Amino acid sequence: MKDKNYFLSKAQENYPELIYTDITPDITDFTAVSGDSIILDLGQHAVGHFSFSFDRVNVFVDAPVRLSIKFGEDMREINDDFSQYKGVLSETWLQEEIINIDFPQRVTMNRRFACRFIKITVEKANRPIKLFDFSFRASTSADISALSPSGSKDDLLRKIDNVAANTLKECMQTFFEDGPKRDRRLWIGDLRLEALTDYYTFNNLEIVRRCLYLFAAGECNKLGFLPSFVYETPYYHSGETYIEDYALLYVVAVCDYYEHSKDTDTLNDLIDICKSQLDSFYATLDKNLIATRQDGWFAFIDWCPGLEIMTSLQGVYIYTLERFADLLKAIGDDDFEKYKSILLKVRSACRKYLYDENKKAFVNSLDNNQLSVHSQIWMILGGVIDGEKAVNLLSECLEDRTAKQPCTPYMHHYVVEAMLKLGLNETAVQYIKNLWGGMVVLGADTFWEAYVPDDPDFSPYNDRMINSLCHAWSCTPLYFIRKYRL
Amino acid sequence: MKDKNYFLSKAQENYPELIYTDITPDITDFTAVSGDSIILDLGQHAVGHFSFSFDRVNVFVDAPVRLSIKFGEDMREINDDFSQYKGVLSETWLQEEIINIDFPQRVTMNRRFACRFIKITVEKANRPIKLFDFSFRASTSADISALSPSGSKDDLLRKIDNVAANTLKECMQTFFEDGPKRDRRLWIGDLRLEALTDYYTFNNLEIVRRCLYLFAAGECNKLGFLPSFVYETPYYHSGETYIEDYALLYVVAVCDYYEHSKDTDTLNDLIDICKSQLDSFYATLDKNLIATRQDGWFAFIDWCPGLEIMTSLQGVYIYTLERFADLLKAIGDDDFEKYKSILLKVRSACRKYLYDENKKAFVNSLDNNQLSVHSQIWMILGGVIDGEKAVNLLSECLEDRTAKQPCTPYMHHYVVEAMLKLGLNETAVQYIKNLWGGMVVLGADTFWEAYVPDDPDFSPYNDRMINSLCHAWSCTPLYFIRKYRL
Repeated sequence: MKDKNYFLSKAQENYPELIYTDITPDITDFTAVSGDSIILDLGQHAVGHFSFSFDRVNVFVDAPVRLSIKFGEDMREINDDFSQYKGVLSETWLQEEIINIDFPQRVTMNRRFACRFIKITVEKANRPIKLFDFSFRASTSADISALSPSGSKDDLLRKIDNVAANTLKECMQTFFEDGPKRDRRLWIGDLRLEALTDYYTFNNLEIVRRCLYLFAAGECNKLGFLPSFVYETPYYHSGETYIEDYALLYVVAVCDYYEHSKDTDTLNDLIDICKSQLDSFYATLDKNLIATRQDGWFAFIDWCPGLEIMTSLQGVYIYTLERFADLLKAIGDDDFEKYKSILLKVRSACRKYLYDENKKAFVNSLDNNQLSVHSQIWMILGGVIDGEKAVNLLSECLEDRTAKQPCTPYMHHYVVEAMLKLGLNETAVQYIKNLWGGMVVLGADTFWEAYVPDDPDFSPYNDRMINSLCHAWSCTPLYFIRKYRL
Repeated sequence: MKDKNYFLSKAQENYPELIYTDITPDITDFTAVSGDSIILDLGQHAVGHFSFSFDRVNVFVDAPVRLSIKFGEDMREINDDFSQYKGVLSETWLQEEIINIDFPQRVTMNRRFACRFIKITVEKANRPIKLFDFSFRASTSADISALSPSGSKDDLLRKIDNVAANTLKECMQTFFEDGPKRDRRLWIGDLRLEALTDYYTFNNLEIVRRCLYLFAAGECNKLGFLPSFVYETPYYHSGETYIEDYALLYVVAVCDYYEHSKDTDTLNDLIDICKSQLDSFYATLDKNLIATRQDGWFAFIDWCPGLEIMTSLQGVYIYTLERFADLLKAIGDDDFEKYKSILLKVRSACRKYLYDENKKAFVNSLDNNQLSVHSQIWMILGGVIDGEKAVNLLSECLEDRTAKQPCTPYMHHYVVEAMLKLGLNETAVQYIKNLWGGMVVLGADTFWEAYVPDDPDFSPYNDRMINSLCHAWSCTPLYFIRKYRL
């Protein structure tokens, strides 16, 4: 029976082993009185648990000592005043704890934090104290010994490759987390990109299978779509949100996995779910085979203020159909013809109904005819347009300040994918260097959730403090560099 | 070799076993959103660790939840605004923690708290949450099954007896704590009173021996006096403060212990230390046999603003001399005559140099001739004055508003002891009912560190919030009620 319990038991079988490393910061001990503070540098981004020893200096400390301990993924976060936070997400994600310590002891903090820097402030100590033997027990399910050198001859690309590997490593815990600082759940969109990069780095197939099965166990909505996220700590919980493009990209993630692993058993477990995602999407098409809006679900595409997404979503659908039809053909599945036929008809419909000859671009009345890079990218990735026409469309749209431009590294991934599909390898390299290289130049140890070169304070949540500076969807330049030998 | 290591090993041999009880508060579960709060009532004062379960209500809580958890020994403390605290002791004693919880789990708070009430406020939860299975794991080394009924025929005295037994029980942990909320260290003055009450309640001789040995292991100052307090958690630490009356009362505590237990082995271990305390004090007397002030140490006597203490201290010395001489006589120690002879000479000197015929009271130029109840009490307890003359002196001084009056239950103990010594049993009962009965009427579950009937906000530390409401030195009415069958 391939029911929820079956999928959860398969997810459990593939529980990845966590590898622990004890990191000692640069500073080994700290003698302090009230008001003193210190900043420890782990020398690298790390995800795990902080511990230290606390003792008196000479006279016994005869009242509890109060410390505030702040964890920052970078120094800007350490210097931020969290009390000024104005963002839309819960301020409880800001990594700061106030602790009271009654007597000399080893203190191990219960919560897991993601950081490179740790600032300790002595809020109150009525005698001099010493803090020492600082230690950070970092965890990951990535085996870095499996990582081969980048191979790129370009210095900056090698640096980018390195930061990308770190980013993925940090997000690989007992599942693919989207961000080890914030959110810490499994999203389909992130899973697909993390798995893709994993195949070129740590090649941990257990964690990929685990994540694919965790979604397979999810509760589909009434339209038949998988939830866009799930939780696994401390018990399994299927998310309440349904994102159309993510449901489709689950199918792509299964295709990626099979192509890489040729693991027929897992594919057989998941193939019916893949078919049902495409069939459910098909049911949302109008008579012209153009996707329509549905109640209670939405598409993500990109964190981009005011972005309309129906054209992009249509592109994701075709992109998925093509990958899935190829898979069915490769394994000799009888449904190949069915999906191939739909693919060709929908692709043709896009050319007919979504391409605007005046604007020389893809727009959609459901998008209020909004012009966006996103729509063009997904039409290219869906094979609706190609060759020189596509090259021109892409370059013009990227230059057009009236067109919505990509915001997140997640969307930038698909821009690069489209460039490489069109053979624009040098353009792709420049794009990677501009985007991810920009973060490297700014000292990033890991790639960020959001990076807009002209706007260092950009945040999808109205306050930069809450941004995740180690975010799974930003790890893919490594995949491009290695797959395309850039 | 009776050195520090020997005494510490004896202290360790007498480590009392802690008895644990899981207390379930009146309310079993709490469903809440941001801003909600709840107050749990344990139904009794308890010392220990709080735990509870945390989970979502329906939708998964997708950001850490922040709770503030406040522990109050009474409801007044629960309603206090700790941010307004202005006292002289560290605000870190105020029992409140801010905790962040990442996902559904059982939360067991690391720190030990002393409380009857627990207020939980949901500072931030971006989804409804539930808190449930509240539990408080209380500890004590007092075996309540060993406690016999009070025996008093008086209702209020029976209530006082009961609250006193609770107070002692709560302070009995791995040593005699002065207060389980605040200070949490072993003081000689408190030890003496706790041990005395223990003999009439739980009769735990292990903990008494442990405490006596912990002081025996202490580092004496250059004058030869024991430290006034020691710490034992997490390692032994001899206090840096030397209090003369406490050093003397250590000798009295040993006398009390031997009288009650007839434990010759322990007495033999400690008798030299007792002699050295008295000999060291003798060295501070002037040619008239009146004690002089010494550098680097002081006397406690009472928390009473502006109190002068030299006459009282002299009284403590004579009181100790008498008890110790009696002990030496009982065990046939050759030094009996020596101490007896000093006792008589010093007592006589007090009559000659400290009694003011005009004021008809004991005053001392070293005290700026300050008139205090304390001085008279200690001269009575030292046997310097007795009979009708003492009765009149005491009653006049207690009525005299120009005389410094007792402030703490610690000093009130010695007032009652003096009354009973003079045979004023009915006066003593009224005194007990006024003082300790006053706290019972105000709803005390345990007796307070400080209680001034006319001043409900009295604090020795300039802010009532920091007062300990379960304080060892307040447990002695039970001793009087039972010993004197009041």
